[in-house]
Amino acid sequence: MTIRIGILGYGNLGRGVECAVRQNEDTRLTCVFTRRDPAKVKILTEGVNVYSVDEILKHKDEVDVLIICGGSATDLPAMTPKYAADFNVIDSFDTHAKIPEHFANVDAAAKAGGKVAMISVGWDPGMFSLNRAYANAILPEGKDYTFWGRGVSQGHSDAIRRIDGVLDARQYTIPVESAVEAVRSGSKPELTTRQKHTRECFVVAAEGADKARIEQEIVTMPNYFADYDTTVHFITQEELDRDHKGIPHGGMVIRSGVTGINRENRHIIEYKLTLDSNPEFTSSVLIAYARAAFRMYNEGMSGCKTVFDVPVAYLLNMSAEDMRKNML
Amino acid sequence: MTIRIGILGYGNLGRGVECAVRQNEDTRLTCVFTRRDPAKVKILTEGVNVYSVDEILKHKDEVDVLIICGGSATDLPAMTPKYAADFNVIDSFDTHAKIPEHFANVDAAAKAGGKVAMISVGWDPGMFSLNRAYANAILPEGKDYTFWGRGVSQGHSDAIRRIDGVLDARQYTIPVESAVEAVRSGSKPELTTRQKHTRECFVVAAEGADKARIEQEIVTMPNYFADYDTTVHFITQEELDRDHKGIPHGGMVIRSGVTGINRENRHIIEYKLTLDSNPEFTSSVLIAYARAAFRMYNEGMSGCKTVFDVPVAYLLNMSAEDMRKNML
Repeated sequence: MTIRIGILGYGNLGRGVECAVRQNEDTRLTCVFTRRDPAKVKILTEGVNVYSVDEILKHKDEVDVLIICGGSATDLPAMTPKYAADFNVIDSFDTHAKIPEHFANVDAAAKAGGKVAMISVGWDPGMFSLNRAYANAILPEGKDYTFWGRGVSQGHSDAIRRIDGVLDARQYTIPVESAVEAVRSGSKPELTTRQKHTRECFVVAAEGADKARIEQEIVTMPNYFADYDTTVHFITQEELDRDHKGIPHGGMVIRSGVTGINRENRHIIEYKLTLDSNPEFTSSVLIAYARAAFRMYNEGMSGCKTVFDVPVAYLLNMSAEDMRKNML
Repeated sequence: MTIRIGILGYGNLGRGVECAVRQNEDTRLTCVFTRRDPAKVKILTEGVNVYSVDEILKHKDEVDVLIICGGSATDLPAMTPKYAADFNVIDSFDTHAKIPEHFANVDAAAKAGGKVAMISVGWDPGMFSLNRAYANAILPEGKDYTFWGRGVSQGHSDAIRRIDGVLDARQYTIPVESAVEAVRSGSKPELTTRQKHTRECFVVAAEGADKARIEQEIVTMPNYFADYDTTVHFITQEELDRDHKGIPHGGMVIRSGVTGINRENRHIIEYKLTLDSNPEFTSSVLIAYARAAFRMYNEGMSGCKTVFDVPVAYLLNMSAEDMRKNML
């Protein structure tokens, strides 16, 4: 059966979903909804219509699962509950502290409409959360570590761009290799923020701008940079466009735990992602969970789910027999 | 609610389960069943009785989940279907090619008895299988790699011990670091058996035995060593007991895949285990899935399940609310 996918919001993430649909034979893109003027949104897929989000309910019957590609700060807290009563929906809500509240709002809407909703799908939250959960279930006595990068942090890049005299910027978060190795050794180190990650900034300054002042403003910026060892490189716009165009990211979730009658045996579980494109990888996770949402809906389930509630069998376009035969 | 655990078979794995029970507050060991003379089986836990397996049905009501700790060659194909009608059961059946047949036999028995059975629980099959499945769901276009080690292979150690003039032996399987790095680079190499792993053997020879002949017999042994670069070290029994007493193991599951409109972006998903004790880690996985089996049984499910069918939420001794709040 083909799963008809709708995309709400056509930015990096929406485009990633559009690409992911092409790699999954059992999915098909049917509609893209936008808050912009639909006439001005050019998508990659021939024959698929772009509609204003104001008309979304008219196209309810053309969509099996709606993938909501918005920001976590203001878009998703409003949009996901709004559409969860009329569509099976997926989002990638990533404000960890507000997940319980978002879950409650989405759950109420989805239950009222008899639909399935999945929130916080992606890699963190998402695959990293899953790996934390599996590792904690297997090794109840232990310690969790999460490292991010090497990858582009959009929020930190934006913060640099707001500094007077900065034309453009790209910030990389980088795990400290010696800290990662200490964790992998099983020694369970206590690590400060500064010991876990460094930050590297590539900055395009306006002509005549005071670079020393810009660098000082960056490295002392509270919350963003003050707690880290930060390196600043001034480069040209051409260099930035040529060498820093991609949106790579990744990271590691590591659990270090013990077993044995005297807790004498150490075990390390490590899950590591190395991603050329953060939004395209997230989109690929979203499509897999769209498949799961559709199946759960067809089985009569409703309400809000997370990655914790979904058996992996629901994510794959493969029969249970073939999975057992080829993957177990 | 406390989950009452029974262990059938008290070897390395059974002892590992016994230790794991102590690390999981919601589980309690109630019975150990053995094929040996129960009077001669000394266990680590005070106040728990050891019974002959012949009396197992008499103790049916004392056990919520029976963990069957037998070998995959002959024990489990007979034992798991035999007990699946009377107990919720878990096994670590690891003969990949025979999983469909084992599944069918266990499923029929479990359904007849209205019980839940889980087969092939451990790390491979088990956690490695899960990670292959997740990675394939996320990156449908890609290539899977599995590396094992550095770790002790019991089967290969046994094969060496059968050689004339060998008193004792320990064999380590070691992944070839350059092959792992090639996979991590995203280049999707085609790797032969010899390119992926080497084998290192520590051998205790009888006094006066022809070491050159023993070494030759090892490195040319079909199936076990002939296809690998194998190193043989002759050591004393004292050295073997001192330096090679542990049962470490581990390995990596890596998927290298692509996304993007022109498949231009590469992604690497890596799951890596580094284990001081192979049987204790396997036991820890078994206990987590025993928890899941008990919950699924209480929800009215029956039949044979695998790791593919179990949401991670069933594995953790934690409420759904706390999981979302603390781990998502």
